[in-house]
Amino acid sequence: MHPCAPPDVVVWPQAVGQVQELAALCHRCRVPMVPFGTGTGLEGGVNAVQGGVCFDLSRMDAIAELSLEDFSVTVEPGVTRKALNKHLRGTGLWFPVGTVGMRGVIGLGMTALEVLGIPVGLGMVGVLGMIGVHVGVDTIPICLPCPSLLADPGADASLCGMAATGASGTNAVRYGTMRPNVLNLRVVLPDGRLLHTAGPGRQPRKRAAGYDLTSLFVGSEGTLGFLTQATLRLHPLPEATAVTVASFPSVGAAVACTVQVLQAAVPVARIEFLDEVMADACGHFSRMELPVAATLLLELHGSRHSLAEQQQQMEEIVRQNSGSSLAWAEGLEEREQLWSMRHNAWYAALALRPGCQGYSTDVCVPISRLPDVVVETKQDLQASGLTGPMVGHVGDGNFHCILVFNSQDPEEAQRIHAFTQRLGRRALAAGGTCTGEHGVGLGKRALLQEELGQEGLDTLRSIKAALDPHNLMNPGKVL
Amino acid sequence: MHPCAPPDVVVWPQAVGQVQELAALCHRCRVPMVPFGTGTGLEGGVNAVQGGVCFDLSRMDAIAELSLEDFSVTVEPGVTRKALNKHLRGTGLWFPVGTVGMRGVIGLGMTALEVLGIPVGLGMVGVLGMIGVHVGVDTIPICLPCPSLLADPGADASLCGMAATGASGTNAVRYGTMRPNVLNLRVVLPDGRLLHTAGPGRQPRKRAAGYDLTSLFVGSEGTLGFLTQATLRLHPLPEATAVTVASFPSVGAAVACTVQVLQAAVPVARIEFLDEVMADACGHFSRMELPVAATLLLELHGSRHSLAEQQQQMEEIVRQNSGSSLAWAEGLEEREQLWSMRHNAWYAALALRPGCQGYSTDVCVPISRLPDVVVETKQDLQASGLTGPMVGHVGDGNFHCILVFNSQDPEEAQRIHAFTQRLGRRALAAGGTCTGEHGVGLGKRALLQEELGQEGLDTLRSIKAALDPHNLMNPGKVL
Repeated sequence: MHPCAPPDVVVWPQAVGQVQELAALCHRCRVPMVPFGTGTGLEGGVNAVQGGVCFDLSRMDAIAELSLEDFSVTVEPGVTRKALNKHLRGTGLWFPVGTVGMRGVIGLGMTALEVLGIPVGLGMVGVLGMIGVHVGVDTIPICLPCPSLLADPGADASLCGMAATGASGTNAVRYGTMRPNVLNLRVVLPDGRLLHTAGPGRQPRKRAAGYDLTSLFVGSEGTLGFLTQATLRLHPLPEATAVTVASFPSVGAAVACTVQVLQAAVPVARIEFLDEVMADACGHFSRMELPVAATLLLELHGSRHSLAEQQQQMEEIVRQNSGSSLAWAEGLEEREQLWSMRHNAWYAALALRPGCQGYSTDVCVPISRLPDVVVETKQDLQASGLTGPMVGHVGDGNFHCILVFNSQDPEEAQRIHAFTQRLGRRALAAGGTCTGEHGVGLGKRALLQEELGQEGLDTLRSIKAALDPHNLMNPGKVL
Repeated sequence: MHPCAPPDVVVWPQAVGQVQELAALCHRCRVPMVPFGTGTGLEGGVNAVQGGVCFDLSRMDAIAELSLEDFSVTVEPGVTRKALNKHLRGTGLWFPVGTVGMRGVIGLGMTALEVLGIPVGLGMVGVLGMIGVHVGVDTIPICLPCPSLLADPGADASLCGMAATGASGTNAVRYGTMRPNVLNLRVVLPDGRLLHTAGPGRQPRKRAAGYDLTSLFVGSEGTLGFLTQATLRLHPLPEATAVTVASFPSVGAAVACTVQVLQAAVPVARIEFLDEVMADACGHFSRMELPVAATLLLELHGSRHSLAEQQQQMEEIVRQNSGSSLAWAEGLEEREQLWSMRHNAWYAALALRPGCQGYSTDVCVPISRLPDVVVETKQDLQASGLTGPMVGHVGDGNFHCILVFNSQDPEEAQRIHAFTQRLGRRALAAGGTCTGEHGVGLGKRALLQEELGQEGLDTLRSIKAALDPHNLMNPGKVL
């Protein structure tokens, strides 16, 4: 959706001190800075719309201070969620945020160099020399063609990038989003100073000590500083897990089922919605028999004993809402088969129109309004002649239309744009937000203004001006 | 601990428009403004150290927009947590934050007029007339004696006050603190403009739309604006509840038991620690037989079926840590009897030295460091000749020493001050915080500086200066 905007230069700092020196240098020269993790964001967050220096932080990839007793670990920006969970194997702990839902516009494992075309900006040559002299990091000022953007659902995002985006995913209904799962952040401020949002070396599980800087930097999308380390809250691995699929006669029935599950305090770990178009596409793509109907994919975590009770409760609630009878997948392989169907939703959607591009919307509404908003959105898709199967983290009221369109057709691109604006406004009218987990980036700045109102936007601007007075950090994003 | 500092005048606005008009007036005249809810804070948050206008918001007490499907409700600042939970009776929902732990320095149900002495400041007479003319609210410029500060553990704090403080309490281990349970705040900014932190009328369960203003205002202690409405997240009432008490041979054993409970993913609702001094005092005060030992008070929530399993797991873990055998209280009366013992901990502590005053410390440390910090603190208490039984929300690493001392004895007051500073620094050295849930207020400003470091404090100051450039909102607090 966002045309490629390469920076003037890319740097690969390998230690926080280098990030500080580089930032101080850019600050003195008033050069824009763009943080880069894995480039899996959806809203153009790494586009250097005003040029400047791209800081590719992937070479800072230490995992430190794992404390099993405190359920905490500290990671640098090069550490992805998969790498962390691999590191945690055998400890009985895991990091549950983002297991599905961190779709990527960019292919997995690409660096900034591969992702972005990098012409040398004329004004940058002097700065570049200075960077080389001062810091001794690799700098690549060569020009590359801007590659076409790839899509990778379930991309293996970096944890600091997920913090910067305010990401969440399928497990959020039980384990929360990134925000409550970040205990501390080490931030390089725009002028190179080092800030620890909860104080240096601290990681209490709760604090009431001054304004919550951690929550301010989570979701700041690189516009306030570089997240160069995150201390995360880990969770015990469940003893047992069970997954099931249920089909419903309508969207309303699937959502009513979800509300009842939440009201009955069933500690559901994931509750994912597919509309009938998505269910059909996923069934075809993954070669599974899946009824063409509003569908819920449910996962339960617990002890073996409590799982049996949860399953019984779930069966009862699904039946009350005219859902199909449930078959439970409890073995790892069977469970992974079901989830890989959901993981492949992006590709399944793209397969509906081969050769086309995808874009995912991201509204989130109060759950009571979800059936109406989903139904109206499906009518809008139809009236607009667009392909947009739906998936949703329905326990949170968050759903995505995976819009599949021909980006070479300006008329269709225009219809896509108009549709996403209408969808955003529909969510706002229902008391929701234009973005539940993908962030604002470039694409939702106008909607953000409508969402927050003038006072809200003015307050964001005041904070931005206070912490980045020269507007050097990822300029043009969010605000 | 904090000498009474009355404002020049108290106003009782009855609608948000009046708060806006009054704030705009104070802003034009550069008069300090101090928000007042129920006055139950512990760190002098309502003290008008620079005089000015105290805004008593207790007459704004509407409960609106209860949505059972969305698990949400909107409350004005006069609504206390007990009033809300009374309002929710019969709905199957409740608001779990703060059930114990909102100790009050001020007696329950007192207004600002009763709490604070209110001489007319000479410079305020003109302003006062303007307030009367412009807004037509009650204003009381008379002088009252400053009453002695009362203590009320489990005080019925206002929910907006709890949000302003970043409060939590005993249920936080399961349901979180105030921060994740506030969905939106309606804030009157220092110049009278109205801000909705998540946008007007919005309450999605998650958002990634710009900087998280809600989390910024939660815990801002009245220094950034008036919280005139909070939209809160509600939780389903548990089907069944069981409470028990366990005695342990040492602090270490009690904490090890807690860590194991968390690691086993037992969804414990409350896990409260009493040291042997507190257990002894509580036993005497509440006339219950309680061994003089490190003690855990445990509460479980769940379905009847899952409760049985949790109880079994708990018994096993307690046994492994040499705890006493467990007797479960499942009936309401029995459970309330046990909790009233814990509720009365403050009075039980005061009863150790009749006629003396109490002050509660509030450090929070990573749980792995808790045994050492508790043991060192007990040694420090002994070496300092101080009375300070301990209670703690041990699942979060948060504990309080209820210091009982003769405030008329300057030498003892000096020892108390030195002890609290040492305790704060001990928590910081262990990677913790000087305040887990009581806030900074007047008493912990120096410790906050040590906790955050210069960059952290500078960042807080930048934010304060950006949102309240004339330093009119609750000046002298936090920073």
